[in-house]
Amino acid sequence: MALTERTLLGPGPSNPYPEATAGLAAPLLGHLDPEFIAVLERTCDHLRSAWGTANPVTLPLSGTGSIGMEAAFANTVRPGDVVVVAVNGLFGVRMCEVAARYGAEVVRVDHPWGDPVDTERVLAAHPSPALVAAVHAETSTGARSDIAGLGAALREHSPQSLLLADCVTSLGGIEVAVDEWGVDIAYSGTQKCLGVAPGLAPFTFSERAWERRVEIPPVWYLDLGLLGGYVRGGPSGRAYHHTAPVAMVASLDAALARLHEEGLDAVQERHQAAGRRLQDGLQEMGLELFAAEGHRLPQLTSVRVPEGVDSAKVREQLLTEYGIEIGAGVGDYAASVWRIGLMGHNARLDRAELILAALRRVLGR
Amino acid sequence: MALTERTLLGPGPSNPYPEATAGLAAPLLGHLDPEFIAVLERTCDHLRSAWGTANPVTLPLSGTGSIGMEAAFANTVRPGDVVVVAVNGLFGVRMCEVAARYGAEVVRVDHPWGDPVDTERVLAAHPSPALVAAVHAETSTGARSDIAGLGAALREHSPQSLLLADCVTSLGGIEVAVDEWGVDIAYSGTQKCLGVAPGLAPFTFSERAWERRVEIPPVWYLDLGLLGGYVRGGPSGRAYHHTAPVAMVASLDAALARLHEEGLDAVQERHQAAGRRLQDGLQEMGLELFAAEGHRLPQLTSVRVPEGVDSAKVREQLLTEYGIEIGAGVGDYAASVWRIGLMGHNARLDRAELILAALRRVLGR
Repeated sequence: MALTERTLLGPGPSNPYPEATAGLAAPLLGHLDPEFIAVLERTCDHLRSAWGTANPVTLPLSGTGSIGMEAAFANTVRPGDVVVVAVNGLFGVRMCEVAARYGAEVVRVDHPWGDPVDTERVLAAHPSPALVAAVHAETSTGARSDIAGLGAALREHSPQSLLLADCVTSLGGIEVAVDEWGVDIAYSGTQKCLGVAPGLAPFTFSERAWERRVEIPPVWYLDLGLLGGYVRGGPSGRAYHHTAPVAMVASLDAALARLHEEGLDAVQERHQAAGRRLQDGLQEMGLELFAAEGHRLPQLTSVRVPEGVDSAKVREQLLTEYGIEIGAGVGDYAASVWRIGLMGHNARLDRAELILAALRRVLGR
Repeated sequence: MALTERTLLGPGPSNPYPEATAGLAAPLLGHLDPEFIAVLERTCDHLRSAWGTANPVTLPLSGTGSIGMEAAFANTVRPGDVVVVAVNGLFGVRMCEVAARYGAEVVRVDHPWGDPVDTERVLAAHPSPALVAAVHAETSTGARSDIAGLGAALREHSPQSLLLADCVTSLGGIEVAVDEWGVDIAYSGTQKCLGVAPGLAPFTFSERAWERRVEIPPVWYLDLGLLGGYVRGGPSGRAYHHTAPVAMVASLDAALARLHEEGLDAVQERHQAAGRRLQDGLQEMGLELFAAEGHRLPQLTSVRVPEGVDSAKVREQLLTEYGIEIGAGVGDYAASVWRIGLMGHNARLDRAELILAALRRVLGR
């Protein structure tokens, strides 16, 4: 039953930090154990630092990254609400679908895949939407959008609109500053730059989003009113909602402690340096990067498959001969783009050199 | 940061099987890795054996046990559907709440807590409900209900009604026979008798439930139409839905492999023997069991707190002096009942003796 060891350089999961793996295998605590409550509180505090927020409602939701998106819309959208969604990749498309399930009147602003979100076009789509949603780091394309700029412009354009940012692939890898940027709702996943296995969705919700939240959202499991009672306590103490995934939380706690020890700035510089080396090396090899120049994520690089090369065959060869996983493209780009992640524990120069060397061999360059 | 080791004899989580812990810490695979797909398929096959079903839609959902309940109602209830819920503890109460969020007309059939579900009363509540829901093993009270009897009677009474069974605390500990009993929808949690950390909800859905499922459920994350495509494959192959919690699935896979090696019958006998010893020992100590005689779960024993004893103080003393966690009661019984679990890896005579000895010391009996 022993599993093969892989170097996970796709769009996630990435190889966890050793501390995160140790946290998973640590002795299990009950979800109401005072020691576990301390672990959870420390995790939430460390998440607040990582998000750059003072939001009391900041917690890891009990599901993979997508549950963060679900919770975001379930707790904010009432039937008929206008929700403007910036779409520049798969996760923008998905936000439209999820928002629509909660009855939103979705105004979709499409961009070419690989481009960043265009603030002016997004704001021009509606004078006063209930919610504006955009993806900070598009996992499907490797493009980075300027959420700070979108937030600032939105405050001018329509101060009462809430701003939602998908930070699944950004948190723990590049700067995220929820409070400074004016983001009201944000979610992430543990399996990308945070360097933990998939299974939790770090989530943060501003006070003004809290005041305007849906009182009884359709989804009981993601009802922030009930979850908030577990995380913040309430008049009658800490209310049991559901059994927390204690091993996953212990793992996230261990990874966040490590990130804070290394320093969030140092972690971001490490992602930056590894990504730059990879992108330089790919271009030196004569390959063409996919995401728009100036808007490329260091932690996730999209690169065009060279003419005449069988995309899937290369990925298979990397996997079977080198034990390295990289990702295919998405949608129209499934066969013409690769996605290479250097996230979390893999955001290192040696991993960049490894995938460059392996690709050189496989492509004969 | 090292966590204290606990003996988890509450209502769950229980201490995982060593194989499950090893699975958590094994090298991480990508969620689309052929080797992971094999792990997932083996997990689903082993789950089918454990559930006693041939249902193709049998899978671990990516959340804790409560997400199974949410998925059950989200995919079956249309606004206005009559849902009869047997309530004999907290999880019956919760089913009413969750069903109502999806627009069900809930017909609630209350029973005294600690009693099993009364088939006749449940069926008398409505001539032809869309769905009948009951809890097999009530975690809040330690009572076992006769789902086989309910299923057989329902087929006579209203053959077109779907039957839903909450098996969070039964699967892997006592017999569950979904197909034989005529259960259409069932869910469980990993942190009870399956002996895995919390984080997944084993789920099974019959073919007739599939045919009548809600086409576009309000919750995207739990849309079985989309999830089914990932688990069963579809016309265009295995469709990506969300990143599976790969470490948790590897852990469940390892635990299920162990259960099947030991033999499901042997595992059930082990739960039976441990529970019997505990319940006998508690009564020998002069304590009174809470759940109705003849309907007591071996894996979860509820016992009345003796007159004049401070319930919370005893639990605290067990935790701090012996490292043993047991559970409080729920709701009206919070201070007057304890819940002691001997589940999964803890379903052993030595654990029964341990808690009996510790209780004897603490209570001075």
